[in-house]
Amino acid sequence: MNRPSEQSPPSGFRARLHTVIFEADTPAGRAFDIALLWAIVFSVVAVMLESVAQVRAGYGHWLHIAEWIFTVLFALEYVLRLVAVRQPLHYARSFFGVVDLMALLPSFLSVLFPGAQTLLVIRVLRLLRVFRILKLGHLLGQAEVLLTALRASRPKIIVFLGTVLSIDVIMGAVMYMVEGEAHGFDSIPRSMYWAIVTMTTVGFGDITPKTVLGQFLASILMVMGYGIIAVPTGIVSVELAAAARQSLDTQACPGCGAQGHDPDARYCKRCGTALDWAPSRPTG
Amino acid sequence: MNRPSEQSPPSGFRARLHTVIFEADTPAGRAFDIALLWAIVFSVVAVMLESVAQVRAGYGHWLHIAEWIFTVLFALEYVLRLVAVRQPLHYARSFFGVVDLMALLPSFLSVLFPGAQTLLVIRVLRLLRVFRILKLGHLLGQAEVLLTALRASRPKIIVFLGTVLSIDVIMGAVMYMVEGEAHGFDSIPRSMYWAIVTMTTVGFGDITPKTVLGQFLASILMVMGYGIIAVPTGIVSVELAAAARQSLDTQACPGCGAQGHDPDARYCKRCGTALDWAPSRPTG
Amino acid sequence: MNRPSEQSPPSGFRARLHTVIFEADTPAGRAFDIALLWAIVFSVVAVMLESVAQVRAGYGHWLHIAEWIFTVLFALEYVLRLVAVRQPLHYARSFFGVVDLMALLPSFLSVLFPGAQTLLVIRVLRLLRVFRILKLGHLLGQAEVLLTALRASRPKIIVFLGTVLSIDVIMGAVMYMVEGEAHGFDSIPRSMYWAIVTMTTVGFGDITPKTVLGQFLASILMVMGYGIIAVPTGIVSVELAAAARQSLDTQACPGCGAQGHDPDARYCKRCGTALDWAPSRPTG
Amino acid sequence: MNRPSEQSPPSGFRARLHTVIFEADTPAGRAFDIALLWAIVFSVVAVMLESVAQVRAGYGHWLHIAEWIFTVLFALEYVLRLVAVRQPLHYARSFFGVVDLMALLPSFLSVLFPGAQTLLVIRVLRLLRVFRILKLGHLLGQAEVLLTALRASRPKIIVFLGTVLSIDVIMGAVMYMVEGEAHGFDSIPRSMYWAIVTMTTVGFGDITPKTVLGQFLASILMVMGYGIIAVPTGIVSVELAAAARQSLDTQACPGCGAQGHDPDARYCKRCGTALDWAPSRPTG
Repeated sequence: MNRPSEQSPPSGFRARLHTVIFEADTPAGRAFDIALLWAIVFSVVAVMLESVAQVRAGYGHWLHIAEWIFTVLFALEYVLRLVAVRQPLHYARSFFGVVDLMALLPSFLSVLFPGAQTLLVIRVLRLLRVFRILKLGHLLGQAEVLLTALRASRPKIIVFLGTVLSIDVIMGAVMYMVEGEAHGFDSIPRSMYWAIVTMTTVGFGDITPKTVLGQFLASILMVMGYGIIAVPTGIVSVELAAAARQSLDTQACPGCGAQGHDPDARYCKRCGTALDWAPSRPTG
Repeated sequence: MNRPSEQSPPSGFRARLHTVIFEADTPAGRAFDIALLWAIVFSVVAVMLESVAQVRAGYGHWLHIAEWIFTVLFALEYVLRLVAVRQPLHYARSFFGVVDLMALLPSFLSVLFPGAQTLLVIRVLRLLRVFRILKLGHLLGQAEVLLTALRASRPKIIVFLGTVLSIDVIMGAVMYMVEGEAHGFDSIPRSMYWAIVTMTTVGFGDITPKTVLGQFLASILMVMGYGIIAVPTGIVSVELAAAARQSLDTQACPGCGAQGHDPDARYCKRCGTALDWAPSRPTG
Repeated sequence: MNRPSEQSPPSGFRARLHTVIFEADTPAGRAFDIALLWAIVFSVVAVMLESVAQVRAGYGHWLHIAEWIFTVLFALEYVLRLVAVRQPLHYARSFFGVVDLMALLPSFLSVLFPGAQTLLVIRVLRLLRVFRILKLGHLLGQAEVLLTALRASRPKIIVFLGTVLSIDVIMGAVMYMVEGEAHGFDSIPRSMYWAIVTMTTVGFGDITPKTVLGQFLASILMVMGYGIIAVPTGIVSVELAAAARQSLDTQACPGCGAQGHDPDARYCKRCGTALDWAPSRPTG
Repeated sequence: MNRPSEQSPPSGFRARLHTVIFEADTPAGRAFDIALLWAIVFSVVAVMLESVAQVRAGYGHWLHIAEWIFTVLFALEYVLRLVAVRQPLHYARSFFGVVDLMALLPSFLSVLFPGAQTLLVIRVLRLLRVFRILKLGHLLGQAEVLLTALRASRPKIIVFLGTVLSIDVIMGAVMYMVEGEAHGFDSIPRSMYWAIVTMTTVGFGDITPKTVLGQFLASILMVMGYGIIAVPTGIVSVELAAAARQSLDTQACPGCGAQGHDPDARYCKRCGTALDWAPSRPTG
């Protein structure tokens, strides 16, 4: 995401190209980005529509043409991006560079393997650019908070997933023995699928226990799942609360060093000293 | 909701009408409002009953008559409301004004399009008036707290919904390719419907994966949904806690009237004045 | 639950009876209570077993006899309880008095209405006595904390349930119109049942939308339900945290009045004064 | 888990054996442990594959042989572990000793009872050793935090489970009477299974209410389940927060060494000594 090549853009034609394609500050750049967004949305919708049998029967030909037009446009855009940056390889290996390329390949693959164009929905990832274009930087900040909270919980989450997986393997084997193939539990992997469907409280009902013992074991599994669902929720709540608190607790009073002041505090709540980190506020 | 026309009600007949229809402080006004509430409840129940085939067969005629009586009554009430206020347009464009009108239209629409009277259930929104009538203002305060908590979480919720939608589009396309039409995944939109049914742990079971790969991918989606469900819960918990904390800190500074001090604050965080509501604590 | 008649129990035979039946402190009282508990468990299990067709075919006669023996025993116990207390009406109107009586009636009702004996499972409520017998008073304290947390959240919960009900009525009517009787949505009440099944993420799958529009609306309802599930969880978390905090925050320092000391604090964390509310702890 | 026999390992051959088998610090020990982990994974996967009919048809013979090879290897390992420790009985009765033995038995059982080898999946528990091998001790610390949080909530969880079970018994009996055998509610135990499936929001849909009254009662049960799901989540959240807070308050008083002071404490709450870790705060 941090592309040093953009800090010092090339001059002349490439510089102008760079401004239009990579930046959203100039009218031309903004117009380009908005046009790009709509092209991505239309191209994803076209892929979706093509998958609907009735639409394909009536408009399949046109959707096919639209798809190739979008692919050519995006290929052109990809080449222009490579031209516009000083270090094309750097861009090509960046997150958006890889996504941009992957968003092209399925069209060409579909020549060899009909149906591969369905993978074009990966273009939806290109929409992540919307954050930069619509100046929604503060939303990214929120995503950051969410990710920080999740990252801080990673060890707990690993322990949690390990527990879920162990229960899943053992319950899968037990239910395979108790219910057997006659009731749909026709292999341990399938029983494990059922156990996950049950523990996560999804409960499709495509496979269900029929015997009294099986239903009893399923009941226990469900109540356990009910309790287990509380663990990730509790973890995330606590970490989110900690993340929210931390963003408040970083200012120390110059008089007594007390922390934990509210964001709108002007005077230390302990000793009454004016807080000098807020120069834009009247301190008198 | 804030109707300036009511602060200075018209005099004479319109003033009396206004008091009866819009206020709930006088016996007449209270009687009118309670009669209105029951009329709304009965009218909604009538619409529900008419949709039940057995009831319609036996009492359809009477329900039809009742419906029109309610509609005429509500239309009369709507006209009276327009007459009673000084600025009829102001009322007509207010939230309750629009709901009152929309609660009438389906009856007339049903003359042209049989069945449209089902829309009359929108009358249920008129019951929101119950809060004013039954002096349940404190409940509205609670709704306010809930809404504040949700509004404060809006950026996080947008990021969250964006993530859910992206996973939904990609999983929808992948499952459409993996399972195909033979197993019910007959288009990407339908696969996306399945992915949402799965991720939200609803799990109807009308469409379910049958292949081993499909069930494996579904398992991953389910465990992810299990984790994702933790995010909104955590967000709302943290914001509710923050909202609850704020409502406690209602002491005003004697110097500048600022509020929102921490429970253990000794000096106003705004102006540095010693906070005198805590006489038992040393202020030096 | 507070039975003044027990503070001053009658003398002689009734006093001894009272001690045995109502108290669990003497060996005889404890033995009586434990025997009672097992009788309740066996009687409930007998009712359950009688409902299983295979068991009823083989042992129905014996279960029927057992049921009547338990009923006669419990009737005898009820009479003895009435005799043992000074104010029989006071006991008869207490929570346990009503439950004890209701636990007898279904047997007699079943003479008139075969099948009514199923209601005997209400005897399970009599097991609540287990808390007193097994000295599990601290568990009752926990139940108290849970109930306090729920009671404090009551206004928020009413607003929440009102919102859920409104969405339910409107979605029920809309889905009834969109899907219609052909797809199982054959009346508004049934559609409302479906909407609740969906919003609570239960998702039986006995009724499911088949049209594209219906599946789209269902998806929105599911994501909303996903968010709505966060509200009660958040409410209860916050109230539980507040209840836990309150039990800590009730002691003020005699020197400076500061609160919020830990339960094991001996000196004020603010001014260093010895905290005198803890006479059993050394203060030097 | 604490095996005193390992603190003073035997000398000579047994000492070397002990180092290789029980420790993961030497290259040989680490290689042994990693080889063991892979053997466990392969053996569990073999059991799973054998349960799949197609795989069994093609490779059943080879999987059977692999199973016995793994069993012989693990039996050898078990004997070596007994030899390597000073107090074999101590190891044999430890958690891992019991698991190691139980991971062998199903193979021998399967000679008498074909199909018993499915129980070999219990070997998955042996993977818990992975924590020591991969130096994931901090993950165990996280598991400790989770367990502490759950243990602290035990009384609340018992009350909660008691409530769920009572509702389950009563709703099971009521639905058995309301819906009856014709709609799948063919005994109270089966109705209780349905009530748990519904309350936990799993909702298989294998048994569903068909009557209006049954669907109404089910709706109430679902909304209750919706609220009840909030209780364990709230409990775990609060306890996790408390556990997290405690791990922060690790500063020791310079006077008496007491810990657990609040972050804003100035004086030791035990002995009244000024806490000197906060030199920037006025101590007078």
